[in-house]
Amino acid sequence: MSLPQKQSSETYEVTYDESRQELSKNGEVIIRNPHLNGLSSDVLYHLAISTDTHDLPALFGDVKFVCVGGTLKRMKQFAEYMAKELDIQFDGKDWTAASFRYSMFKVGPVLSVTHGMGISSLSILMHEIIKLVYYAKCKNVVFLRIGTSGGIGVEPGTVVITDKAVDGLLRPYYELYILGKVVRRPSICNKELVEELKSIAAQEIKDFPTISGTTMCTLDFYESQARLDGAFCDLTAQQKIDFLNKLKDANVVNIEMEAITFASMCHYTGIQGAIICVTLVNRLLGDQVSANKDYLYQLQTRPQILAAKLIKKRLALYKSQNI
Amino acid sequence: MSLPQKQSSETYEVTYDESRQELSKNGEVIIRNPHLNGLSSDVLYHLAISTDTHDLPALFGDVKFVCVGGTLKRMKQFAEYMAKELDIQFDGKDWTAASFRYSMFKVGPVLSVTHGMGISSLSILMHEIIKLVYYAKCKNVVFLRIGTSGGIGVEPGTVVITDKAVDGLLRPYYELYILGKVVRRPSICNKELVEELKSIAAQEIKDFPTISGTTMCTLDFYESQARLDGAFCDLTAQQKIDFLNKLKDANVVNIEMEAITFASMCHYTGIQGAIICVTLVNRLLGDQVSANKDYLYQLQTRPQILAAKLIKKRLALYKSQNI
Repeated sequence: MSLPQKQSSETYEVTYDESRQELSKNGEVIIRNPHLNGLSSDVLYHLAISTDTHDLPALFGDVKFVCVGGTLKRMKQFAEYMAKELDIQFDGKDWTAASFRYSMFKVGPVLSVTHGMGISSLSILMHEIIKLVYYAKCKNVVFLRIGTSGGIGVEPGTVVITDKAVDGLLRPYYELYILGKVVRRPSICNKELVEELKSIAAQEIKDFPTISGTTMCTLDFYESQARLDGAFCDLTAQQKIDFLNKLKDANVVNIEMEAITFASMCHYTGIQGAIICVTLVNRLLGDQVSANKDYLYQLQTRPQILAAKLIKKRLALYKSQNI
Repeated sequence: MSLPQKQSSETYEVTYDESRQELSKNGEVIIRNPHLNGLSSDVLYHLAISTDTHDLPALFGDVKFVCVGGTLKRMKQFAEYMAKELDIQFDGKDWTAASFRYSMFKVGPVLSVTHGMGISSLSILMHEIIKLVYYAKCKNVVFLRIGTSGGIGVEPGTVVITDKAVDGLLRPYYELYILGKVVRRPSICNKELVEELKSIAAQEIKDFPTISGTTMCTLDFYESQARLDGAFCDLTAQQKIDFLNKLKDANVVNIEMEAITFASMCHYTGIQGAIICVTLVNRLLGDQVSANKDYLYQLQTRPQILAAKLIKKRLALYKSQNI
């Protein structure tokens, strides 16, 4: 960068909150928020769902999988796909339509929900969907993010199972400002679920490559990802490549914009969660996502295929164990 | 907070980038990105618009106002409202429908565009819409964010014109990580536009209160805004009130999730921009947005009323000056 700049060295007090809430013995989420007990009803505002207008245990008590992704098109398509895979009639109902914020479809034990773009949009959804799962008394719920990403040195179309999520400074923490202070919570991925997904991919998926590795989660799509095609850019092509190679040396295989918050919030609440993203571009070779829309759309179904295999395997297991 | 925690004191190198690009003499945006010249075409991926599939000067060259807000419902309603105000037939066409990310409507010189929730979602839109305005050779474009927010000590329904945008640590900077380093850019609001909006509100709006003040922009809706009704919360009611009172003492009148990035990106590119948000709740009295949906919807039209008055005043001025 070659800008009118000033440099400074600044010191911050940082609180590391490495606590974790376990699920209850029967697999329900335990909410660590004493204030909720005092509410006569709880409005999940951005879902347009409230505890006094919706009988959450009756409507959602059977949910075992919450699958989240960026866009309506993808998550509706996933709901349709799961309906076919589970031999369930898809009703097409968007449970959160009145919110005009997110869309949520239910296919038997599977919720398919949009989260928009970026950690802020995701975090609002996560807070409200975790409360939904809690009020509904869902048991042993698994959260899956099925998304898209930019790859680092991997063939476009590769599916990445995140085994470590880091921020734009390569730190494995979700940083929040709470009461005007810096708080960091570890963005730890669930090892058991990662291993299970890797094993399923190795055994059952031959049509496309699936790998695991570190995912970098950035706050912006252009400058933080060292793209050269934003509305402004002060980087040279060499600085970009040096940075991406530095990421490669740190085992970063893909970059997206939600992993750190998803991993951290799942870990914090004791929910098993995994991040499965397809790469749409190899950033070492270019920035622009310029492939044919139909081809890109086809790539976006790959994380869904892996997610569906996990869901079916788990459902068979639960059935055999009467869970 | 009363958690298992560790504290640490950490030092970071911070680069302050206080540079600003002025508009060209004829009022066009000058893109500070030499790499764009080397592109044979530019795919604005999240808008599903490309320079080789869309004749941008012909389609959008007459745009003078880019109005952005969170949801499709609100921005479509704003487009319909502007069509009525400007006596233009509204065609209902969503120019970015193929993206499944944002929605964009055009009513003569006005674009009405959704930005989703949070700074990340907004920043992607801003990069791509600034490039659109640049390629289209729009002149003297004004950007307006018309949104919703939580109020601090002000009556719900109050419209706030942001005169200063700060982050969750009360710093007037948009912080990015670029090439793995911390970069901060000032989130300066355009004084001229703020004064113009205040003057219009004072003279022409009697039905609801309009004020100006500092807007805090947070990365999350729950913990960073000291809400007690998230899926987890380790704050006491007293800590929350103490924090909100601290914000009040710092002249913060409302909290939302996009202001800092919007203000910073407008300032950085020399675009006149302003943030006009209605408050839906007084956070000193409660957290939940539980008012009737119809009433909330009616409140959301208030920033639109002020925006429309500015647009009509400016258009009349441009007409008189043959701009």
